[in-house]
Amino acid sequence: MMSEVTMEKIVSMAKSRGFVFPGSEIYGGLANTWDYGPLGVELKNNVKKAWWKKFVQQSPYNVGLDSAILMNPQTWVASGHVGGFNDPLKDCKKCKARFRADKLIEDHAFNNNLEIIVDGWENKRMKEYIEEHKILCPECGALDYTDIRQFNLMFKTFQGVTEDTSTEIYLRPETAQGIFINFKSVQRTSRKKVPFGIGQIGKSFRNEITPGNFIFRTREFEQMELEFFCKPGEDLEWFHYWSDYCKNWLLSLGLREENIRMREHSQEELSHYSNATTDIEFKFPFGWGELWGIADRTDYDLKQHANHSGEDFTYIDPVTNERYVPYCIEPSVGVERLTLAFLIDAYREEEIDENDSRVVLKLHPALAPFKVAIFPLTKKLKEQTLELYEKLAEKYMVDYDEAGSIGKRYRRHDEIGTPYCITFDFDSLEDKCVTIRNRDTMEQERIEMANLELYLDEKLRF
Amino acid sequence: MMSEVTMEKIVSMAKSRGFVFPGSEIYGGLANTWDYGPLGVELKNNVKKAWWKKFVQQSPYNVGLDSAILMNPQTWVASGHVGGFNDPLKDCKKCKARFRADKLIEDHAFNNNLEIIVDGWENKRMKEYIEEHKILCPECGALDYTDIRQFNLMFKTFQGVTEDTSTEIYLRPETAQGIFINFKSVQRTSRKKVPFGIGQIGKSFRNEITPGNFIFRTREFEQMELEFFCKPGEDLEWFHYWSDYCKNWLLSLGLREENIRMREHSQEELSHYSNATTDIEFKFPFGWGELWGIADRTDYDLKQHANHSGEDFTYIDPVTNERYVPYCIEPSVGVERLTLAFLIDAYREEEIDENDSRVVLKLHPALAPFKVAIFPLTKKLKEQTLELYEKLAEKYMVDYDEAGSIGKRYRRHDEIGTPYCITFDFDSLEDKCVTIRNRDTMEQERIEMANLELYLDEKLRF
Repeated sequence: MMSEVTMEKIVSMAKSRGFVFPGSEIYGGLANTWDYGPLGVELKNNVKKAWWKKFVQQSPYNVGLDSAILMNPQTWVASGHVGGFNDPLKDCKKCKARFRADKLIEDHAFNNNLEIIVDGWENKRMKEYIEEHKILCPECGALDYTDIRQFNLMFKTFQGVTEDTSTEIYLRPETAQGIFINFKSVQRTSRKKVPFGIGQIGKSFRNEITPGNFIFRTREFEQMELEFFCKPGEDLEWFHYWSDYCKNWLLSLGLREENIRMREHSQEELSHYSNATTDIEFKFPFGWGELWGIADRTDYDLKQHANHSGEDFTYIDPVTNERYVPYCIEPSVGVERLTLAFLIDAYREEEIDENDSRVVLKLHPALAPFKVAIFPLTKKLKEQTLELYEKLAEKYMVDYDEAGSIGKRYRRHDEIGTPYCITFDFDSLEDKCVTIRNRDTMEQERIEMANLELYLDEKLRF
Repeated sequence: MMSEVTMEKIVSMAKSRGFVFPGSEIYGGLANTWDYGPLGVELKNNVKKAWWKKFVQQSPYNVGLDSAILMNPQTWVASGHVGGFNDPLKDCKKCKARFRADKLIEDHAFNNNLEIIVDGWENKRMKEYIEEHKILCPECGALDYTDIRQFNLMFKTFQGVTEDTSTEIYLRPETAQGIFINFKSVQRTSRKKVPFGIGQIGKSFRNEITPGNFIFRTREFEQMELEFFCKPGEDLEWFHYWSDYCKNWLLSLGLREENIRMREHSQEELSHYSNATTDIEFKFPFGWGELWGIADRTDYDLKQHANHSGEDFTYIDPVTNERYVPYCIEPSVGVERLTLAFLIDAYREEEIDENDSRVVLKLHPALAPFKVAIFPLTKKLKEQTLELYEKLAEKYMVDYDEAGSIGKRYRRHDEIGTPYCITFDFDSLEDKCVTIRNRDTMEQERIEMANLELYLDEKLRF
């Protein structure tokens, strides 16, 4: 029935329909930056809204935060990013191409149907693996690399008039640390008791050597992170709670279960401070890839900041008077990567009958850029149709579309995932009804305009 | 009746209630960065949502965009930012304090009740004005400055492994250019006809010498910009349309008319490419300040990018076949500054009677962080109250609050602007009713829980 979903199809659809354009395109681009067009920004905003709603608004445990991208650089000393946030670089001596050693190994493994996780490997082990398996330069085929050297991924800039180490600051490589350093301010002002969580959505920047796979890995990206603070000893229970919570949220937004899997990190792969980590992986066209990391980070971060700042992060339980530094569970997901997963998962090529087929984006209505498209049967009905448009646009993202036959307009909106199309025709002038057509079933029904809002409210409720 | 609203009161309230914390506070801060706490992030998100709804969702002319912060540096050559986006710097030779010459003059004028606009002045004129009016160093009182020199406000960073001019890029100083360079991609994919607009919300960065006045001027800030493209000759009509549109939107969100004014730029003050510019100013405690700039930028930006990129930005009218480069109207407003204006405008100290007073944030319900607070009369009713909380939280930001007397809880929510407080009491178990209390009138009424959603939908509709 369905032909394969390839990255080429997704990238091409995204560009031609106005989801995602190459960044700075008129100037020849800027390595793997992307601009989100009229449909892309709505889709991405809907992903963020759905996350915020589920993880902040609807959770009685959690509150939100929006901390600055520019932070005191001591933050990154404490977090370990100044010392240890490096990629293992390797150049091909022959053609000068530059690679991440871990990615060379993972790509080689993927092409040979091996499953290998390189996270946590020492440089020496990577070097030996590459030599042992004779992993050739993907660019020129040579086997003549430089040694591995470490490259720090934080973008540096200077604040103020002079450019020296005293004014050097970083673009944050993750939003998480902004949460940790505000732990006490948030706890005090929101009067939350442990267990509670702080959620944040915001941009982060990583000077990746090899960004790629469209919007899967980009240097500038947006994170949705929750840091959930709990009592030591109760952390594994909460770890499982949030793992399930994340997975169930993906399913509730229509992501197909066969396209995701949970992958527990082995002891070897775990960060030294982590009690447990699970990745929710998605089946991208280029292989299974990390979608969402859920980590039990123990009290590592709060203690690091306590040591470097002198601030005391001890929590005193108001009932039992127990004193402890809370443990922390961190579910962390990238907006662009998740948006890509939703696009891939929703993309279908359907045969309607022997002579007809369609491309349809079966996005959950909560994610669809337009909830409704509204058509005048002919341009003569423009004025009345626009009246209805204005009424519905008070509540929903609505597209007004008057170009081409109704059939063509249906197909256009199938391709961008609009769940409902409404046609205003000449009968509408008399019977005050419109035809509403369902994207997925392609069925049409006639309903009274007076009932339209109620009808849509019910269908679009999420 | 009301005592004066000062910046001190606003800053203190913002910090103690969890609206805005000093950034990186545990590490001694980082010059004028700010983190938005649980209430601040909701308020700021509500400002952004209201803008997007009015300027993108509800306007049949406009679509949205989200372009990258990191752009090809040629963008900033074309836009004039590499050559001309400078602040006029002046140091006090005696105490080494550093100032913006234009701000020295404006502050001096403000303190002397003079109204002076320094925008557009040459260095020479500023220097002479400072000497003539004997504007002393605000730090040490000397009158011994260095000459004015230009300092470029763009933050620089390096993309990739090496740090040299070939890898030098900038953090965008405005979101507008991301719109201009995508003009054709957006127009083509959205099939919009001129006149149409492209709206964008996103972070920008300016290496300000003297950021300050709390969140009024910060180095990292978020903009809400619309670039509206129209036919040359129709630009002034659209300029007035959008000026009114912006002002009316502010009023619809409850901003008091006496706190805003429209200020047209004089010919002298206008940028060389601008046909007209109006600032909507707000009466901040430190004086009238720019809130929203609305500028007729003619075809300057599109032509600059056409010249530097080779791209042709000519639009061909599909009906008349006329060919022209569209003119552009730009209403541009900062999220943080606008959020500050809403906070100041909403802050009231009210006498209730001879012995009682309250602080109340009369935020428009669409902006209020919590729409509803829900209280159990006593902790014994926690379970039933949480049930109601969960139901309402599906739709609204709701706070569950069980601490202190009901009166104290009312006051706490007055201070953070919650428009409705609901109390679940022992009678509620029997009569299925709750008491709902209005923030502004302080009146209470008893309503059936079954009707609560309908009641709130109507009250909170915006």
